[in-house]
Amino acid sequence: MSDATPTRPTGYSAWRLIAEELRADITEGRLQTGDRLPPESALATRFGVNRHTARQALASLAAEGLIESRRGSGTFVTSSAVHVHRIGMRTRLSTSLGNGHQPSGRVIESALETAPAHIARRLGIADDGLAVRVESLRTVDGEPFALGSRWFDAARLPDIAASLRRTSSITAALRASGVDDYVRVSTVVSARHATATESGLLGLGSGAIVLVTEALDALPDGTPLQHLVTRFAAQRVRLDIEHPDPTA
Amino acid sequence: MSDATPTRPTGYSAWRLIAEELRADITEGRLQTGDRLPPESALATRFGVNRHTARQALASLAAEGLIESRRGSGTFVTSSAVHVHRIGMRTRLSTSLGNGHQPSGRVIESALETAPAHIARRLGIADDGLAVRVESLRTVDGEPFALGSRWFDAARLPDIAASLRRTSSITAALRASGVDDYVRVSTVVSARHATATESGLLGLGSGAIVLVTEALDALPDGTPLQHLVTRFAAQRVRLDIEHPDPTA
Repeated sequence: MSDATPTRPTGYSAWRLIAEELRADITEGRLQTGDRLPPESALATRFGVNRHTARQALASLAAEGLIESRRGSGTFVTSSAVHVHRIGMRTRLSTSLGNGHQPSGRVIESALETAPAHIARRLGIADDGLAVRVESLRTVDGEPFALGSRWFDAARLPDIAASLRRTSSITAALRASGVDDYVRVSTVVSARHATATESGLLGLGSGAIVLVTEALDALPDGTPLQHLVTRFAAQRVRLDIEHPDPTA
Repeated sequence: MSDATPTRPTGYSAWRLIAEELRADITEGRLQTGDRLPPESALATRFGVNRHTARQALASLAAEGLIESRRGSGTFVTSSAVHVHRIGMRTRLSTSLGNGHQPSGRVIESALETAPAHIARRLGIADDGLAVRVESLRTVDGEPFALGSRWFDAARLPDIAASLRRTSSITAALRASGVDDYVRVSTVVSARHATATESGLLGLGSGAIVLVTEALDALPDGTPLQHLVTRFAAQRVRLDIEHPDPTA
Protein backbone atom coordinates (compact mmCIF):
# COMPACT_ATOMS: atom_id res chain seq x y z
CA MET A 1 0.00 0.00 0.00
CA SER A 2 1.59 3.28 -1.03
CA ASP A 3 0.36 5.86 1.39
CA ALA A 4 1.45 9.39 0.62
CA THR A 5 -0.20 10.83 3.68
CA PRO A 6 1.39 13.96 5.15
CA THR A 7 0.59 13.08 8.76
CA ARG A 8 3.26 11.29 10.71
CA PRO A 9 4.14 10.44 14.26
CA THR A 10 6.18 12.94 16.21
CA GLY A 11 9.90 12.30 16.12
CA TYR A 12 9.77 10.54 12.80
CA SER A 13 11.17 13.00 10.33
CA ALA A 14 9.55 13.53 6.95
CA TRP A 15 12.63 12.51 4.99
CA ARG A 16 12.93 9.23 6.81
CA LEU A 17 9.30 8.42 6.14
CA ILE A 18 9.87 9.00 2.44
CA ALA A 19 13.07 6.98 2.49
CA GLU A 20 11.20 4.09 4.07
CA GLU A 21 8.44 4.22 1.44
CA LEU A 22 11.03 4.17 -1.34
CA ARG A 23 12.96 1.41 0.39
CA ALA A 24 9.76 -0.66 0.50
CA ASP A 25 9.19 0.05 -3.20
CA ILE A 26 12.67 -1.35 -3.87
CA THR A 27 12.74 -4.31 -1.51
CA GLU A 28 9.20 -5.35 -2.41
CA GLY A 29 9.98 -5.23 -6.11
CA ARG A 30 7.87 -2.28 -7.29
CA LEU A 31 11.17 -0.59 -8.17
CA GLN A 32 13.74 -2.97 -9.60
CA THR A 33 17.48 -2.87 -10.17
CA GLY A 34 18.23 -0.32 -12.88
CA ASP A 35 14.88 1.44 -12.60
CA ARG A 36 15.00 5.21 -12.46
CA LEU A 37 13.43 6.86 -9.44
CA PRO A 38 11.04 9.79 -9.89
CA PRO A 39 12.84 13.16 -9.82
CA GLU A 40 13.02 15.10 -6.56
CA SER A 41 10.28 17.46 -7.68
CA ALA A 42 7.89 14.56 -8.32
CA LEU A 43 8.72 12.98 -4.97
CA ALA A 44 8.20 16.32 -3.25
CA THR A 45 4.73 16.58 -4.81
CA ARG A 46 3.84 12.94 -4.07
CA PHE A 47 4.73 13.24 -0.39
CA GLY A 48 3.71 16.86 0.11
CA VAL A 49 7.16 18.04 1.16
CA ASN A 50 9.73 20.45 -0.27
CA ARG A 51 12.54 19.36 -2.56
CA HIS A 52 15.13 19.60 0.17
CA THR A 53 13.27 16.97 2.17
CA ALA A 54 12.94 14.69 -0.85
CA ARG A 55 16.67 15.11 -1.50
CA GLN A 56 17.50 14.13 2.07
CA ALA A 57 15.47 10.94 1.67
CA LEU A 58 17.35 10.05 -1.52
CA ALA A 59 20.68 10.87 0.12
CA SER A 60 19.98 8.45 2.97
CA LEU A 61 19.15 5.62 0.56
CA ALA A 62 22.22 6.46 -1.51
CA ALA A 63 24.34 6.28 1.67
CA GLU A 64 23.09 2.73 2.17
CA GLY A 65 23.96 1.84 -1.41
CA LEU A 66 20.36 1.11 -2.38
CA ILE A 67 20.26 3.81 -5.06
CA GLU A 68 22.78 5.94 -6.88
CA SER A 69 22.59 9.31 -8.49
CA ARG A 70 24.10 9.60 -11.98
CA ARG A 71 24.87 13.17 -12.87
CA GLY A 72 22.64 14.41 -15.64
CA SER A 73 20.55 11.26 -15.96
CA GLY A 74 18.79 10.79 -12.62
CA THR A 75 18.74 8.42 -9.67
CA PHE A 76 18.67 4.66 -10.17
CA VAL A 77 18.16 1.53 -8.13
CA THR A 78 21.61 -0.09 -7.86
CA SER A 79 22.44 -3.75 -8.22
CA SER A 80 24.14 -3.95 -4.84
CA ALA A 81 20.93 -3.53 -2.93
CA VAL A 82 19.54 -6.60 -1.27
CA HIS A 83 20.71 -10.19 -1.02
CA VAL A 84 18.25 -13.04 -0.92
CA HIS A 85 19.15 -15.63 1.69
CA ARG A 86 17.28 -18.92 1.36
CA ILE A 87 16.15 -20.73 4.50
CA GLY A 88 15.41 -24.40 4.12
CA MET A 89 16.11 -27.77 5.60
CA ARG A 90 19.58 -28.00 4.03
CA THR A 91 20.49 -24.41 3.28
CA ARG A 92 23.91 -23.02 4.09
CA LEU A 93 24.69 -19.32 3.85
CA SER A 94 27.76 -20.25 1.83
CA THR A 95 25.60 -21.60 -0.99
CA SER A 96 22.32 -19.71 -0.58
CA LEU A 97 23.25 -16.37 -2.09
CA GLY A 98 24.11 -17.48 -5.61
CA ASN A 99 24.64 -15.01 -8.43
CA GLY A 100 28.39 -14.97 -7.96
CA HIS A 101 28.24 -13.20 -4.60
CA GLN A 102 31.15 -13.99 -2.29
CA PRO A 103 30.15 -14.73 1.28
CA SER A 104 32.86 -14.82 3.90
CA GLY A 105 33.01 -14.99 7.66
CA ARG A 106 35.34 -14.56 10.57
CA VAL A 107 35.10 -15.49 14.22
CA ILE A 108 35.20 -12.38 16.37
CA GLU A 109 34.93 -14.08 19.72
CA SER A 110 34.47 -17.45 21.34
CA ALA A 111 33.97 -18.59 24.91
CA LEU A 112 33.33 -21.62 27.05
CA GLU A 113 30.50 -20.74 29.40
CA THR A 114 27.18 -21.62 30.96
CA ALA A 115 24.53 -21.28 28.28
CA PRO A 116 21.32 -19.32 28.90
CA ALA A 117 18.78 -21.79 30.33
CA HIS A 118 16.53 -21.94 27.26
CA ILE A 119 19.53 -22.67 25.00
CA ALA A 120 20.89 -25.34 27.34
CA ARG A 121 17.47 -27.03 27.29
CA ARG A 122 17.35 -26.91 23.50
CA LEU A 123 20.80 -28.41 23.12
CA GLY A 124 20.19 -31.02 25.80
CA ILE A 125 23.10 -29.73 27.91
CA ALA A 126 23.09 -31.10 31.45
CA ASP A 127 22.37 -28.71 34.33
CA ASP A 128 26.02 -28.17 35.21
CA GLY A 129 27.29 -28.55 31.62
CA LEU A 130 29.08 -25.93 29.58
CA ALA A 131 28.44 -24.53 26.12
CA VAL A 132 30.84 -23.31 23.48
CA ARG A 133 29.66 -19.95 22.16
CA VAL A 134 31.10 -18.56 18.93
CA GLU A 135 30.40 -15.06 17.60
CA SER A 136 31.11 -14.36 13.97
CA LEU A 137 30.69 -11.61 11.42
CA ARG A 138 29.52 -12.60 7.95
CA THR A 139 30.27 -10.42 4.96
CA VAL A 140 29.06 -10.58 1.36
CA ASP A 141 31.27 -9.09 -1.30
CA GLY A 142 33.27 -7.49 1.52
CA GLU A 143 30.25 -5.73 3.05
CA PRO A 144 29.02 -6.60 6.56
CA PHE A 145 25.89 -8.71 6.23
CA ALA A 146 25.10 -10.59 9.44
CA LEU A 147 26.27 -11.38 12.95
CA GLY A 148 26.01 -14.96 14.13
CA SER A 149 25.99 -16.32 17.67
CA ARG A 150 26.33 -20.09 17.83
CA TRP A 151 26.07 -22.38 20.82
CA PHE A 152 27.24 -25.98 20.98
CA ASP A 153 27.36 -28.60 23.74
CA ALA A 154 30.97 -28.33 24.96
CA ALA A 155 30.98 -31.96 26.06
CA ARG A 156 30.27 -33.12 22.52
CA LEU A 157 32.12 -30.51 20.42
CA PRO A 158 34.99 -29.22 22.59
CA ASP A 159 37.13 -28.16 19.61
CA ILE A 160 34.48 -26.48 17.47
CA ALA A 161 35.56 -22.89 18.22
CA ALA A 162 39.16 -23.59 17.23
CA SER A 163 37.99 -25.31 14.05
CA LEU A 164 35.75 -22.38 13.16
CA ARG A 165 38.61 -19.95 13.69
CA ARG A 166 40.74 -22.04 11.32
CA THR A 167 38.22 -22.60 8.54
CA SER A 168 35.51 -19.92 8.87
CA SER A 169 33.16 -22.56 7.45
CA ILE A 170 30.70 -24.20 9.81
CA THR A 171 30.34 -27.17 7.48
CA ALA A 172 34.11 -27.75 7.40
CA ALA A 173 34.46 -27.13 11.15
CA LEU A 174 31.76 -29.66 11.94
CA ARG A 175 33.31 -32.18 9.59
CA ALA A 176 36.60 -31.78 11.49
CA SER A 177 34.62 -32.71 14.61
CA GLY A 178 33.16 -35.78 12.95
CA VAL A 179 29.78 -34.29 11.94
CA ASP A 180 29.26 -35.01 8.25
CA ASP A 181 25.69 -33.84 7.86
CA TYR A 182 23.12 -31.72 9.63
CA VAL A 183 19.68 -30.32 8.94
CA ARG A 184 17.68 -27.31 9.98
CA VAL A 185 14.84 -28.27 12.28
CA SER A 186 13.60 -24.92 13.57
CA THR A 187 13.79 -21.29 12.45
CA VAL A 188 12.02 -18.40 14.15
CA VAL A 189 12.19 -14.97 12.53
CA SER A 190 11.73 -11.64 14.28
CA ALA A 191 12.84 -8.04 13.81
CA ARG A 192 13.97 -5.28 16.14
CA HIS A 193 16.18 -2.22 16.24
CA ALA A 194 19.90 -2.91 16.13
CA THR A 195 21.87 -2.31 19.29
CA ALA A 196 24.74 0.17 19.16
CA THR A 197 27.26 -2.66 18.99
CA GLU A 198 25.38 -4.40 16.19
CA SER A 199 25.14 -1.14 14.25
CA GLY A 200 28.87 -0.64 14.66
CA LEU A 201 29.82 -4.13 13.51
CA LEU A 202 27.34 -4.14 10.62
CA GLY A 203 28.11 -0.59 9.53
CA LEU A 204 24.52 0.59 10.02
CA GLY A 205 23.14 4.02 10.75
CA SER A 206 21.08 5.00 13.76
CA GLY A 207 17.58 3.53 13.87
CA ALA A 208 18.65 0.60 11.70
CA ILE A 209 16.82 -2.70 11.89
CA VAL A 210 18.08 -6.24 12.30
CA LEU A 211 16.17 -9.25 11.06
CA VAL A 212 16.84 -11.99 13.61
CA THR A 213 16.67 -15.72 12.99
CA GLU A 214 16.88 -18.16 15.90
CA ALA A 215 17.54 -21.58 14.55
CA LEU A 216 18.24 -25.10 15.68
CA ASP A 217 20.31 -27.44 13.54
CA ALA A 218 20.37 -31.14 14.31
CA LEU A 219 21.93 -34.37 13.16
CA PRO A 220 19.81 -36.27 10.64
CA ASP A 221 18.62 -38.47 13.54
CA GLY A 222 17.27 -35.39 15.34
CA THR A 223 20.01 -34.94 17.95
CA PRO A 224 20.40 -31.18 18.62
CA LEU A 225 23.67 -29.83 17.20
CA GLN A 226 23.80 -26.05 17.26
CA HIS A 227 21.63 -23.18 18.43
CA LEU A 228 22.22 -20.29 16.07
CA VAL A 229 21.06 -16.70 16.39
CA THR A 230 21.76 -14.61 13.29
CA ARG A 231 21.20 -10.88 13.08
CA PHE A 232 21.01 -9.70 9.49
CA ALA A 233 21.20 -6.03 8.47
CA ALA A 234 17.52 -5.79 7.45
CA GLN A 235 18.23 -3.27 4.72
CA ARG A 236 20.50 -5.79 2.97
CA VAL A 237 18.54 -9.02 3.13
CA ARG A 238 15.35 -10.81 2.18
CA LEU A 239 14.84 -14.27 3.63
CA ASP A 240 13.40 -16.67 1.10
CA ILE A 241 11.61 -19.51 2.87
CA GLU A 242 11.80 -22.90 1.22
CA HIS A 243 8.43 -24.66 0.83
CA PRO A 244 7.88 -28.17 -0.55
CA ASP A 245 6.90 -28.26 -4.22
CA PRO A 246 3.15 -28.99 -4.17
CA THR A 247 3.30 -30.77 -7.51
CA ALA A 248 6.25 -33.00 -6.59
CA MET B 1 40.42 -22.76 23.02
CA SER B 2 42.56 -19.72 23.75
CA ASP B 3 39.83 -17.53 25.17
CA ALA B 4 37.84 -20.02 27.21
CA THR B 5 36.88 -17.47 29.81
CA PRO B 6 33.55 -16.44 31.28
CA THR B 7 33.94 -12.97 29.79
CA ARG B 8 31.16 -11.75 27.56
CA PRO B 9 31.77 -10.60 24.03
CA THR B 10 31.40 -7.12 22.76
CA GLY B 11 28.04 -7.36 21.10
CA TYR B 12 26.54 -9.64 23.65
CA SER B 13 26.46 -7.47 26.72
CA ALA B 14 25.25 -8.53 30.14
CA TRP B 15 22.02 -6.60 29.87
CA ARG B 16 21.17 -8.26 26.57
CA LEU B 17 21.74 -11.72 27.99
CA ILE B 18 19.30 -10.84 30.75
CA ALA B 19 16.82 -9.34 28.28
CA GLU B 20 16.99 -12.52 26.21
CA GLU B 21 16.30 -14.71 29.24
CA LEU B 22 13.32 -12.58 30.21
CA ARG B 23 12.10 -12.55 26.61
CA ALA B 24 12.26 -16.32 26.56
CA ASP B 25 10.36 -16.41 29.88
CA ILE B 26 7.64 -14.33 28.22
CA THR B 27 7.49 -15.92 24.77
CA GLU B 28 7.69 -19.42 26.24
CA GLY B 29 4.89 -18.69 28.69
CA ARG B 30 6.72 -18.79 32.04
CA LEU B 31 5.77 -15.12 32.45
CA GLN B 32 2.29 -14.31 31.18
CA THR B 33 0.39 -11.18 30.25
CA GLY B 34 -0.25 -9.09 33.35
CA ASP B 35 2.41 -10.84 35.44
CA ARG B 36 4.69 -8.58 37.41
CA LEU B 37 8.42 -8.96 36.76
CA PRO B 38 10.81 -9.28 39.67
CA PRO B 39 12.15 -5.88 40.81
CA GLU B 40 15.50 -4.66 39.44
CA SER B 41 17.27 -5.59 42.67
CA ALA B 42 16.04 -9.18 42.44
CA LEU B 43 17.02 -9.43 38.77
CA ALA B 44 20.45 -8.00 39.61
CA THR B 45 20.93 -10.69 42.26
CA ARG B 46 19.59 -13.49 40.05
CA PHE B 47 21.94 -12.62 37.17
CA GLY B 48 24.89 -11.42 39.23
CA VAL B 49 24.93 -7.90 37.80
CA ASN B 50 24.36 -4.43 39.18
CA ARG B 51 20.99 -2.70 39.12
CA HIS B 52 21.96 -0.43 36.26
CA THR B 53 22.51 -3.48 34.05
CA ALA B 54 19.19 -5.02 35.11
CA ARG B 55 17.48 -1.70 34.36
CA GLN B 56 19.00 -1.61 30.87
CA ALA B 57 17.63 -5.10 30.16
CA LEU B 58 14.15 -4.01 31.24
CA ALA B 59 14.40 -0.82 29.18
CA SER B 60 15.18 -2.79 26.02
CA LEU B 61 12.16 -5.05 26.52
CA ALA B 62 9.98 -2.02 27.27
CA ALA B 63 11.17 -0.40 24.03
CA GLU B 64 9.88 -3.47 22.18
CA GLY B 65 6.54 -3.23 23.94
CA LEU B 66 6.93 -6.57 25.68
CA ILE B 67 6.77 -5.11 29.16
CA GLU B 68 5.75 -1.81 30.67
CA SER B 69 6.74 0.00 33.79
CA ARG B 70 3.91 1.41 35.89
CA ARG B 71 5.04 4.12 38.23
CA GLY B 72 4.89 3.00 41.83
CA SER B 73 3.68 -0.53 41.15
CA GLY B 74 6.42 -2.24 39.14
CA THR B 75 7.03 -3.67 35.69
CA PHE B 76 4.45 -5.89 33.99
CA VAL B 77 4.18 -8.11 30.96
CA THR B 78 1.91 -6.14 28.61
CA SER B 79 -1.09 -7.51 26.80
CA SER B 80 0.64 -6.85 23.51
CA ALA B 81 3.12 -9.66 24.08
CA VAL B 82 4.23 -11.76 21.16
CA HIS B 83 2.31 -14.20 19.03
CA VAL B 84 4.01 -16.98 17.19
CA HIS B 85 2.73 -17.25 13.62
CA ARG B 86 3.71 -20.45 11.87
CA ILE B 87 4.62 -20.30 8.20
CA GLY B 88 4.35 -23.55 6.32
CA MET B 89 2.94 -25.18 3.24
CA ARG B 90 -0.59 -25.39 4.67
CA THR B 91 -0.62 -22.81 7.40
CA ARG B 92 -3.51 -20.38 7.81
CA LEU B 93 -3.33 -17.44 10.18
CA SER B 94 -6.70 -18.53 11.51
CA THR B 95 -5.21 -21.76 12.85
CA SER B 96 -1.54 -20.91 13.36
CA LEU B 97 -1.75 -18.98 16.60
CA GLY B 98 -3.20 -21.63 18.88
CA ASN B 99 -3.42 -21.26 22.66
CA GLY B 100 -6.96 -19.94 22.52
CA HIS B 101 -6.03 -16.68 20.79
CA GLN B 102 -8.83 -15.23 18.69
CA PRO B 103 -7.70 -14.00 15.29
CA SER B 104 -10.11 -11.87 13.32
CA GLY B 105 -9.95 -9.76 10.18
CA ARG B 106 -11.85 -7.13 8.29
CA VAL B 107 -11.54 -5.79 4.77
CA ILE B 108 -10.62 -2.11 4.84
CA GLU B 109 -10.37 -1.54 1.11
CA SER B 110 -10.77 -3.37 -2.17
CA ALA B 111 -10.25 -2.36 -5.78
CA LEU B 112 -10.30 -3.67 -9.31
CA GLU B 113 -7.15 -2.39 -10.98
CA THR B 114 -4.06 -3.04 -13.06
CA ALA B 115 -1.63 -4.99 -10.88
CA PRO B 116 2.01 -3.93 -10.53
CA ALA B 117 3.98 -5.69 -13.27
CA HIS B 118 5.84 -8.10 -10.98
CA ILE B 119 2.57 -9.20 -9.36
CA ALA B 120 0.76 -9.60 -12.71
CA ARG B 121 3.65 -11.80 -13.88
CA ARG B 122 3.48 -13.91 -10.74
CA LEU B 123 -0.27 -14.43 -11.01
CA GLY B 124 -0.12 -15.08 -14.74
CA ILE B 125 -2.42 -12.13 -15.50
CA ALA B 126 -2.48 -11.14 -19.17
CA ASP B 127 -0.94 -7.82 -20.22
CA ASP B 128 -4.25 -5.98 -20.31
CA GLY B 129 -5.84 -8.00 -17.51
CA LEU B 130 -7.09 -6.69 -14.20
CA ALA B 131 -6.40 -7.74 -10.63
CA VAL B 132 -8.60 -7.66 -7.56
CA ARG B 133 -6.73 -6.10 -4.66
CA VAL B 134 -8.03 -6.50 -1.12
CA GLU B 135 -6.58 -4.75 1.92
CA SER B 136 -7.42 -6.11 5.33
CA LEU B 137 -6.55 -5.57 8.97
CA ARG B 138 -5.99 -8.65 11.10
CA THR B 139 -6.42 -8.49 14.84
CA VAL B 140 -5.63 -11.01 17.56
CA ASP B 141 -7.64 -10.83 20.75
CA GLY B 142 -8.91 -7.46 19.51
CA GLU B 143 -5.44 -5.97 19.09
CA PRO B 144 -4.10 -4.93 15.64
CA PHE B 145 -1.65 -7.56 14.49
CA ALA B 146 -1.08 -7.35 10.73
CA LEU B 147 -2.09 -5.63 7.52
CA GLY B 148 -2.65 -7.79 4.46
CA SER B 149 -2.65 -6.81 0.79
CA ARG B 150 -3.94 -9.56 -1.47
CA TRP B 151 -4.01 -9.67 -5.26
CA PHE B 152 -6.05 -12.11 -7.37
CA ASP B 153 -6.60 -12.54 -11.11
CA ALA B 154 -9.89 -10.71 -11.65
CA ALA B 155 -10.73 -12.90 -14.65
CA ARG B 156 -10.65 -16.01 -12.48
CA LEU B 157 -11.94 -14.71 -9.15
CA PRO B 158 -14.19 -11.73 -9.93
CA ASP B 159 -16.23 -12.07 -6.73
CA ILE B 160 -13.44 -12.66 -4.25
CA ALA B 161 -13.50 -9.15 -2.72
CA ALA B 162 -17.23 -9.34 -2.03
CA SER B 163 -16.81 -12.81 -0.52
CA LEU B 164 -13.99 -11.62 1.71
CA ARG B 165 -16.07 -8.68 2.92
CA ARG B 166 -18.85 -11.13 3.82
CA THR B 167 -16.81 -13.81 5.53
CA SER B 168 -13.49 -12.23 6.59
CA SER B 169 -12.02 -15.70 6.06
CA ILE B 170 -9.87 -16.26 3.01
CA THR B 171 -10.46 -20.00 3.15
CA ALA B 172 -14.26 -19.52 3.20
CA ALA B 173 -14.14 -16.80 0.52
CA LEU B 174 -12.10 -19.01 -1.80
CA ARG B 175 -14.44 -21.93 -1.20
CA ALA B 176 -17.34 -19.68 -2.28
CA SER B 177 -15.38 -19.14 -5.50
CA GLY B 178 -14.90 -22.86 -6.03
CA VAL B 179 -11.36 -23.13 -4.62
CA ASP B 180 -11.36 -25.93 -2.06
CA ASP B 181 -7.65 -26.17 -1.35
CA TYR B 182 -4.48 -24.14 -1.77
CA VAL B 183 -0.87 -24.33 -0.66
CA ARG B 184 1.93 -21.88 0.08
CA VAL B 185 4.61 -22.03 -2.58
CA SER B 186 6.76 -18.98 -1.79
CA THR B 187 7.40 -16.76 1.23
CA VAL B 188 9.97 -13.97 1.38
CA VAL B 189 10.54 -12.18 4.68
CA SER B 190 11.96 -8.69 5.16
CA ALA B 191 11.77 -5.91 7.75
CA ARG B 192 11.57 -2.14 7.56
CA HIS B 193 10.20 0.84 9.44
CA ALA B 194 6.42 1.18 9.38
CA THR B 195 4.95 3.96 7.29
CA ALA B 196 2.73 6.52 9.02
CA THR B 197 -0.41 4.83 7.72
CA GLU B 198 0.79 1.41 8.85
CA SER B 199 1.68 2.79 12.29
CA GLY B 200 -1.77 4.33 12.54
CA LEU B 201 -3.67 1.20 11.55
CA LEU B 202 -1.51 -1.10 13.67
CA GLY B 203 -1.45 1.24 16.67
CA LEU B 204 2.34 1.50 16.69
CA GLY B 205 4.60 4.25 18.00
CA SER B 206 7.12 6.25 16.02
CA GLY B 207 10.10 4.28 14.72
CA ALA B 208 8.12 1.03 14.90
CA ILE B 209 9.10 -1.89 12.70
CA VAL B 210 7.02 -4.08 10.41
CA LEU B 211 8.01 -7.63 9.51
CA VAL B 212 6.89 -8.09 5.90
CA THR B 213 6.07 -11.40 4.24
CA GLU B 214 5.48 -11.56 0.50
CA ALA B 215 3.86 -14.85 -0.36
CA LEU B 216 2.42 -16.76 -3.25
CA ASP B 217 -0.35 -19.27 -2.69
CA ALA B 218 -1.29 -21.71 -5.46
CA LEU B 219 -3.71 -24.48 -6.25
CA PRO B 220 -2.35 -27.95 -5.46
CA ASP B 221 -1.53 -28.30 -9.19
CA GLY B 222 0.72 -25.22 -8.97
CA THR B 223 -1.61 -22.67 -10.62
CA PRO B 224 -0.95 -19.25 -8.98
CA LEU B 225 -3.88 -18.18 -6.81
CA GLN B 226 -3.04 -15.18 -4.64
CA HIS B 227 -0.13 -12.81 -4.13
CA LEU B 228 -0.16 -11.77 -0.48
CA VAL B 229 1.89 -9.09 1.25
CA THR B 230 1.47 -9.08 5.02
CA ARG B 231 2.94 -6.47 7.31
CA PHE B 232 3.10 -7.66 10.91
CA ALA B 233 3.75 -5.37 13.86
CA ALA B 234 7.27 -6.67 14.55
CA GLN B 235 6.97 -6.15 18.28
CA ARG B 236 4.00 -8.52 18.40
CA VAL B 237 5.11 -11.43 16.25
CA ARG B 238 7.66 -14.15 15.76
CA LEU B 239 7.42 -16.12 12.54
CA ASP B 240 7.99 -19.82 13.09
CA ILE B 241 9.15 -21.43 9.86
CA GLU B 242 7.98 -24.97 9.26
CA HIS B 243 10.76 -27.40 8.30
CA PRO B 244 10.28 -31.05 7.36
CA ASP B 245 10.92 -33.48 10.21
CA PRO B 246 14.37 -34.98 9.45
CA THR B 247 13.48 -38.23 11.18
CA ALA B 248 10.13 -38.69 9.41
